[in-house]
Amino acid sequence: MFDYVPPIDDYRFLLTHVLGFDRAMAETGQEVDGDLAVAVLEEAGRMCAQRLHPLNRHGDEQGCRLVDGGVVTPAGFPDAWRDFVAAGWASMSADPAHGGQGLPFILQLWLDEMLSATNLSFGLFPGLTRGACEAIAAHASDALKATWLPPMVSGAWTGAMALTESGAGTDLALLKTRAAPQADGRYAVTGQKIFISSGDHDFGGNVIHLVLARLPDAPEGVKGISLFLVPKYLPDAQGDFTVRNSMSVGALEKKMGIHAQPTCVMNYDDATGWLVGEPHKGLAAMFTMMNAERLMVGVQGLGVAGAAYQQAAGYARERLQGRSADGARGPVAIIEHADVRRMLLNIRAFVEAGRALGGWTALQLDRAHHHPDAAERARADALVALLTPVVKAAFTDMGFESAVQAQQVFGGHGYIREWGMEQYVRDARIAQIYEGTNGVQAMDLVGRKLALADGLVVEGYFDLIMADLDAAGTILVAARTRDALALLRDATAALRGAGVTATGAAAVDYLRLFALVSLGWMWTRMAQAAQDDSPLHQAKRAVADYFALRVLPQAHGLATGIAAGEASIMALAADAF
Amino acid sequence: MFDYVPPIDDYRFLLTHVLGFDRAMAETGQEVDGDLAVAVLEEAGRMCAQRLHPLNRHGDEQGCRLVDGGVVTPAGFPDAWRDFVAAGWASMSADPAHGGQGLPFILQLWLDEMLSATNLSFGLFPGLTRGACEAIAAHASDALKATWLPPMVSGAWTGAMALTESGAGTDLALLKTRAAPQADGRYAVTGQKIFISSGDHDFGGNVIHLVLARLPDAPEGVKGISLFLVPKYLPDAQGDFTVRNSMSVGALEKKMGIHAQPTCVMNYDDATGWLVGEPHKGLAAMFTMMNAERLMVGVQGLGVAGAAYQQAAGYARERLQGRSADGARGPVAIIEHADVRRMLLNIRAFVEAGRALGGWTALQLDRAHHHPDAAERARADALVALLTPVVKAAFTDMGFESAVQAQQVFGGHGYIREWGMEQYVRDARIAQIYEGTNGVQAMDLVGRKLALADGLVVEGYFDLIMADLDAAGTILVAARTRDALALLRDATAALRGAGVTATGAAAVDYLRLFALVSLGWMWTRMAQAAQDDSPLHQAKRAVADYFALRVLPQAHGLATGIAAGEASIMALAADAF
Repeated sequence: MFDYVPPIDDYRFLLTHVLGFDRAMAETGQEVDGDLAVAVLEEAGRMCAQRLHPLNRHGDEQGCRLVDGGVVTPAGFPDAWRDFVAAGWASMSADPAHGGQGLPFILQLWLDEMLSATNLSFGLFPGLTRGACEAIAAHASDALKATWLPPMVSGAWTGAMALTESGAGTDLALLKTRAAPQADGRYAVTGQKIFISSGDHDFGGNVIHLVLARLPDAPEGVKGISLFLVPKYLPDAQGDFTVRNSMSVGALEKKMGIHAQPTCVMNYDDATGWLVGEPHKGLAAMFTMMNAERLMVGVQGLGVAGAAYQQAAGYARERLQGRSADGARGPVAIIEHADVRRMLLNIRAFVEAGRALGGWTALQLDRAHHHPDAAERARADALVALLTPVVKAAFTDMGFESAVQAQQVFGGHGYIREWGMEQYVRDARIAQIYEGTNGVQAMDLVGRKLALADGLVVEGYFDLIMADLDAAGTILVAARTRDALALLRDATAALRGAGVTATGAAAVDYLRLFALVSLGWMWTRMAQAAQDDSPLHQAKRAVADYFALRVLPQAHGLATGIAAGEASIMALAADAF
Repeated sequence: MFDYVPPIDDYRFLLTHVLGFDRAMAETGQEVDGDLAVAVLEEAGRMCAQRLHPLNRHGDEQGCRLVDGGVVTPAGFPDAWRDFVAAGWASMSADPAHGGQGLPFILQLWLDEMLSATNLSFGLFPGLTRGACEAIAAHASDALKATWLPPMVSGAWTGAMALTESGAGTDLALLKTRAAPQADGRYAVTGQKIFISSGDHDFGGNVIHLVLARLPDAPEGVKGISLFLVPKYLPDAQGDFTVRNSMSVGALEKKMGIHAQPTCVMNYDDATGWLVGEPHKGLAAMFTMMNAERLMVGVQGLGVAGAAYQQAAGYARERLQGRSADGARGPVAIIEHADVRRMLLNIRAFVEAGRALGGWTALQLDRAHHHPDAAERARADALVALLTPVVKAAFTDMGFESAVQAQQVFGGHGYIREWGMEQYVRDARIAQIYEGTNGVQAMDLVGRKLALADGLVVEGYFDLIMADLDAAGTILVAARTRDALALLRDATAALRGAGVTATGAAAVDYLRLFALVSLGWMWTRMAQAAQDDSPLHQAKRAVADYFALRVLPQAHGLATGIAAGEASIMALAADAF
């Protein structure tokens, strides 16, 4: 396995030449410039490359174990976590009011990329903790915040989201876990949850579960769900967190991948908890977590794709098979073969534009939090809401496809464990499923996000893209993206106000078309910014052309499929499947 | 996990209404009619569903072990093998001259589908044995045939193909294994091979390796490779096969999937072998094996896709989540949701047309062997050569994509081992890689097969399709397939005589376009044949429409990508990857 090389040059190029980072920071009053940002990313990259990448395959081989009711993570993980926390990475983008460092979210997103590239299982610990912190910060009482947030923000304690039950996954209306009010204002939570990432570990410190449950007087359905903070350890009489709560790990899920991540079946047995936010408003609090998580999960796809690319490109430069195109030399490195390049370019056409689009979205999140003008904040917030399902679903679909193609570059050597390529495929697969399946993301985009502000948000986004395409002059990828954008606008108009079935029939293809246009937009901006003869700029222009000529043509078929409507999908009776 | 239901109704429909089975048998003088064929498939289906399907997940969990130098397969596999052999399934399509039953190859292909659907690891044992038998039958001396073929054909002994070395995969010119002639006319074979499927087992009986190696006077490159028969057991003085040959299993490969299949590192240490065919002509003999195997491997993709479909459709009918489209009922079975149907229909649109196309190709193979007219035999043989890389690559790519989509229907329950869906994904992945990666198949199609008979073979195939499309009148899928065929003909003309790089740049997209047209052709024939109101006929027409409206539109983007040429793929310097 090759070393992981953090994509610092690409980050610097994006910050400086594509995303207008310094101007964005100045506008939002954040005291971070491009040089500092790159320095932070360099340090983060070193940590990921040197501490986490070497643990990745070992973590997969050893996996987690349940010993005396507690999770034992793979050897090296507890130490890595302590180092990660000590260096301050857990709190990098958190609000200084709760002990965070307040660095811009774009740096968090790219840290998440490098975490996912080097150790997806490990990266879930800080990722889920951050989501839990955001929900607590947004919805909990000041008293709860004061107690629980500081140690969670620092990473001394970790967080977990306990939503799913065996009968209630996508449809949380069906959940059965109950919370009974106690005389002291606390609640007794009882039920079983499954698929709980980071449900327990041996890093030391508390594990804070945010659990969805029903109060006794709860209305049926999703309007009767409340959110509870249920910690592994309760405070004793001295206020030290030493008292085991009545919750336990029932089992570790046996999974296709992310073996170093303890995905737990959790049993809560009159476990003590505190209500977070209003009764019956748990779903809103959960979506605070989920939205933060969904961007991170999208970036997991990006991270794995980038890492798999590096391995495959390294292998393709070294592996000797076959002869040169003219037959004169052989064996040659397989990077000379057009079909091998095609696979690598497919990955790169996604990864570099995805990195840019993720960065752009993160900057909107920074604007949404920090811009002095409320209207700008609202506008940025709406754009993040629009892009969140796109980043989550498209990046994880393309991330998985990228991992598969990178594995293919290795031939038979990709199928065996030796090079770690099959682990990338197994690990990347989960990101298409959790935090709302990619089908659910697509329904969210078409069913809810297109309707934001009566369609003005999506139209504003398209106008933004169009302005950049127009400004790019004769660049090939700009012209081709303009064609694809026209198809996307037609599809958007056709789906406006569509019913649930028409939405469902079109949603996944629509989301992919939306993503292709968005990536084409980023390739346009990158190609336009890359006009000198440096290797990086030359490569940007070449991959932009590849994207225009070999990836973007998918747009036509997607638009045709969307326009076909729901009839052919609904024709078959349910029992004929 | 649901039971496996053999697709007997579909086989019967294809034999009777689509593929003209009885007429084909009459033309080729084979004494099998549709009723007998269905009876054989029913019996085969029972064996697969009742004996092999229940062993599939267990085989994955337990895997193979190396004990005292010998492979131990999962519990139940040796018994299942003995039953399989006793019932005659191993010899079903083999030449009666060597003890086979001589049933038509179309039945073998569909047996292979059901084997792959229920137990891919198990199915490799008879599949590889059959390939080895074909190479021996075609190239070995009569003396070798007399000794080795009967017990291999019956399944008492099994076969393995030992081609790959760590430095020689796709490029066999690089292989280093040596064979030294001995005074008794035999050879001493020395070297190490990797990725050797069915390299050893505990079924009892001999294991016959066909090993590629170089003679001392061999020219360099692929023109210096010879094929040797190297058995695990040599005959003793009484002619009983009791003497261990000096070959050993160095290790079992640790793989992503097919854990019940012993993929071996094999060491040959002056192992005794016999030359098969002429010196230095081993590659031709190897391709005899490979071509037979490639159809089987394509069918593995089909089989896994069909099995994964059944599980996903069964789950979708039972799993309750969400509300009906009008909001009135809930929770409803997820089969009501359009996006779930979309995933299932994508799989089915491939599986049913793939089953038909595989069957059509197999009938050509039967014609190639049995037709009384030599010109017809040659014509059929050329069509099989043309279709072989298409079936191998497209079926395994679509098979893998199908397994992934079927897994997605299960949400989080698809990622854990419980339902077996993640095993389908891991198992299906190998078929895209072995027996020549799918990139190599695409190069074979564009670089070699399009040129057969100066392009007349492929033109004849297109004419055949066009005639059926014209005969189908106003059927939607016929009209849309005609459009796609026009794109394919243009692409074919553009690629005629293309150089290696232009071929490599276009090949994978071209093969997929070729496959889409071929599947559209089969949907046309099926839709045309399905004109009554039975559930099966209604479903055929509905899925044909779905294929036309939602799958076939990919053709446009593929054609655009092919037309883009090689420039954008070759622009980047090798060290810029």
